[in-house]
Amino acid sequence: MKDTTDMNGAESLVRTLLACDVNVCFTNPGTSEMHFVAALDHVPGMRCVLALHETVATGAADGYYRMSRKPACTLLHLGPGLANGLSNLHNAKKAGSGVVNIVGEHAPTHVELDAPLTSDIEGIARPVSHWVHTSHDVGDLGTDAARAVQASVSAPGQIATLMLPSETAWTEGGLVAGALPAPDFAPFAQEVLDEATRALGGPDSLLLLGGQALTEENLLTAGRIAAQTGCVLLSEWSNARMERGAGRVSVGRVPYPIDQALDVLKPFKRIVLVGARAPIGFFAYPGKPAVLTAEGAEITKLAGADADLTGALDALAKAAGATETPPAHIAERKVPERPSGPLSPDSIADLIGRAIPEDAIVVDESITTGRAFSPATKGAPKHTWLNNCGGSIGYGMPTAIGAAIACPERKVLGLLGDGSAMYSQQALWTMAREALDITVLIFANRSYSILRGELTNVGVSNPGPRAIDMLSLDRPDLDWVQMAGSMGVEACKAADCDALEAALETGLGSDKPYLIEVLF
Amino acid sequence: MKDTTDMNGAESLVRTLLACDVNVCFTNPGTSEMHFVAALDHVPGMRCVLALHETVATGAADGYYRMSRKPACTLLHLGPGLANGLSNLHNAKKAGSGVVNIVGEHAPTHVELDAPLTSDIEGIARPVSHWVHTSHDVGDLGTDAARAVQASVSAPGQIATLMLPSETAWTEGGLVAGALPAPDFAPFAQEVLDEATRALGGPDSLLLLGGQALTEENLLTAGRIAAQTGCVLLSEWSNARMERGAGRVSVGRVPYPIDQALDVLKPFKRIVLVGARAPIGFFAYPGKPAVLTAEGAEITKLAGADADLTGALDALAKAAGATETPPAHIAERKVPERPSGPLSPDSIADLIGRAIPEDAIVVDESITTGRAFSPATKGAPKHTWLNNCGGSIGYGMPTAIGAAIACPERKVLGLLGDGSAMYSQQALWTMAREALDITVLIFANRSYSILRGELTNVGVSNPGPRAIDMLSLDRPDLDWVQMAGSMGVEACKAADCDALEAALETGLGSDKPYLIEVLF
Repeated sequence: MKDTTDMNGAESLVRTLLACDVNVCFTNPGTSEMHFVAALDHVPGMRCVLALHETVATGAADGYYRMSRKPACTLLHLGPGLANGLSNLHNAKKAGSGVVNIVGEHAPTHVELDAPLTSDIEGIARPVSHWVHTSHDVGDLGTDAARAVQASVSAPGQIATLMLPSETAWTEGGLVAGALPAPDFAPFAQEVLDEATRALGGPDSLLLLGGQALTEENLLTAGRIAAQTGCVLLSEWSNARMERGAGRVSVGRVPYPIDQALDVLKPFKRIVLVGARAPIGFFAYPGKPAVLTAEGAEITKLAGADADLTGALDALAKAAGATETPPAHIAERKVPERPSGPLSPDSIADLIGRAIPEDAIVVDESITTGRAFSPATKGAPKHTWLNNCGGSIGYGMPTAIGAAIACPERKVLGLLGDGSAMYSQQALWTMAREALDITVLIFANRSYSILRGELTNVGVSNPGPRAIDMLSLDRPDLDWVQMAGSMGVEACKAADCDALEAALETGLGSDKPYLIEVLF
Repeated sequence: MKDTTDMNGAESLVRTLLACDVNVCFTNPGTSEMHFVAALDHVPGMRCVLALHETVATGAADGYYRMSRKPACTLLHLGPGLANGLSNLHNAKKAGSGVVNIVGEHAPTHVELDAPLTSDIEGIARPVSHWVHTSHDVGDLGTDAARAVQASVSAPGQIATLMLPSETAWTEGGLVAGALPAPDFAPFAQEVLDEATRALGGPDSLLLLGGQALTEENLLTAGRIAAQTGCVLLSEWSNARMERGAGRVSVGRVPYPIDQALDVLKPFKRIVLVGARAPIGFFAYPGKPAVLTAEGAEITKLAGADADLTGALDALAKAAGATETPPAHIAERKVPERPSGPLSPDSIADLIGRAIPEDAIVVDESITTGRAFSPATKGAPKHTWLNNCGGSIGYGMPTAIGAAIACPERKVLGLLGDGSAMYSQQALWTMAREALDITVLIFANRSYSILRGELTNVGVSNPGPRAIDMLSLDRPDLDWVQMAGSMGVEACKAADCDALEAALETGLGSDKPYLIEVLF
């Protein structure tokens, strides 16, 4: 292809992305990206998914990577378009997801003129990106794109942001580049393997897992180590992706509420980290520790999220003599008892535990409502669970879109707090347009309920009316059925157990998007 | 107050903001801002307006400044909360609006731990901020806040972003600071006054106005200069605020479509800038100039947006001998003829021209639909017109909120394209909650119509189905009546002239928010 000099930059970019196996584009384009849009017409192979706000596009790219283990690209309009997608890129970065952002930029002569949409795009990109580059030479664009894809798949996954000046896009002389080799994993700390092996023994030792340590296979290995050594298994509070359900090794999470987290971690004198970081509080609180592990606990980092976690766990199992040990903590199939009457976090949890279908992908942004979900769902059929790792609300529905596009044969169940869902409700339209098999539950507690607890945690025991008002989503109540209807998604309300059970059956029984407003 | 050392930082911040006459806070707070929220309970005087997405908060602060000429503050949750508000801060920056952002930050020890919500907040803030600071010392916080307010009112208005680490907020020892003097205007270019005066004469000379040159008084002065010298008056395409209507000097805008802009500017050999910048294209287009003025046109910059534009225009009028000249281009009261039948951009324009009430504030994000609005409304009763100056869509409804809160006695009319409105539709909830007197028209052309034209402008004459699909908002159609209803705003659809006339009467007759979905 090297002699294809009548190809414009935009087309060489599209062809390079396809050559690098990037074939899904989540987009909201603008004028400066029109050549890229035009190139999509005559280059087949890129699935383009339109989002009505960039937070949907970037969150979808996050979900897509988590489920397919390969990056999608986004196509965003200049600095403001990138800015709109920034918070879900923050979440993707913290989740270790690989994303290739293509961001339109003015021609350089136009940047100098400081046009209305001119901004410091690289400056906006940098806080959420591992790799940032602007392609000023059409001949380099293909190679730059291949480098961006390469950067994005650095373990566990990275954010690569490539700026595409319109002049580079429209100029002829584009060259298509082939895929570059994926970067090697970071090595895991072989030299601490003995220390890690010694550390694990008895119920005062903890093997803390994160990232790719939570695949089905790696969990089995962890289960063997636990069975052999008697150590406890836990995962971080937020996991980009965890394989769960009956027949799999079940691993609890370090709780979010700081006092509970301190209690859970208190017994552990020795902690080994595989893909996880040493537990810290989500926030700092006056008079409470930031580091959640017991004082004096010995922490051994065997492998970070960027390492070969399968290799690390296999080596640990071998060193512990656990390679043949039957794994501990295999979850048994268990169906929660059928609840009845009014809804509560517990009865909602049981109904979800009863409803999760085999092979479902659960996207969890349920915040306070969801704290009972883990135990109630661990005996459900095999499924995948995704958490928000960056703490910026609004990841749920966009991530569900990406997961559904990555895995069209699987059911996606989104569990969302109402406050979170309001951050990216434009996602409903894309779900409808793409006819995605997603069932969304909105837990309509009509408040930023988590913040009421946090007020107490920071020492405010008697909030007054102005403070309460800032944490309430009533006045007026949101009507999620109308919201969904406005964007073409079928929906219903469920205010008791029977209604929620029926609604889950309807939603999960259909292969179209469906929204359930859960009133409790 | 200097001895009040049992006051925590958050309270000293709230008291300082009030002392600096900042008494409206547009917010979406999180855990790290809970002490600020708590302080609002025992310090009266701050009107807090909750937004369900930060783009609403920052856009509202923009509208508030445009109408009140004093800053509001925003309260945003860490880097991601700021990121969510970034695109409307970009718009505010380009509009010359003053905004004081208070952004929560982790305690420094927590930043070091790289908690999930940790990010480079200053890095996120810088591209959209003129002034950025993190307050690490509780004793300095009050003064830092006063400096932020001072920076925000630097002419024409600036974005000041103050990071508030939670530890600074909760620590005692806060000191309340008083207001600092507002910075002086930049001087206007006295030394080019003669040149500017000589330049203006006859229809091949143009006085191009922007920013504060578009107040009622300054427009009258410009009208005198035009009458005296025969120069033409124009404003920029996007104006943060223009006073218009019968009895005021009427000034056209440089058109957005590049070919029209080139045509309009072609006759001018001499151009004097007062508060405006030399016209450039919104975007760069292959084979078209970026600078829109005729080749060889002499451009004299008398005063930038940061200068004393009243002083500049007064000096120019004096030098031109126009101080007593009756102003040219005074708009006469004119009511467009009542259209009937199906709706079109022209009939919509006439209906709006007939409906604008005395003293209304029109927030215009009507994009393609609105190109006929200027002529049809120039004879309406006196009103104020706000444009999007930064080109990042989604400014309209948030800015309308800020305008309504700044001017509770005035009617606000929002004119929005459907694609734009979808970027910040969460604003409807805040309109309902605050019972704001805003009538919103959504022009439901169900496409990014402007981009279809731009495809042609960049040289794509026959877009194929994939390109068209990326620019279309159908599949599914958005239903704005349901959307409004979901957030507690009354709404109707209008599909012909009679219906739109009646709907405008209902909306403008009520003092509550009302949404009209305009189908055409």
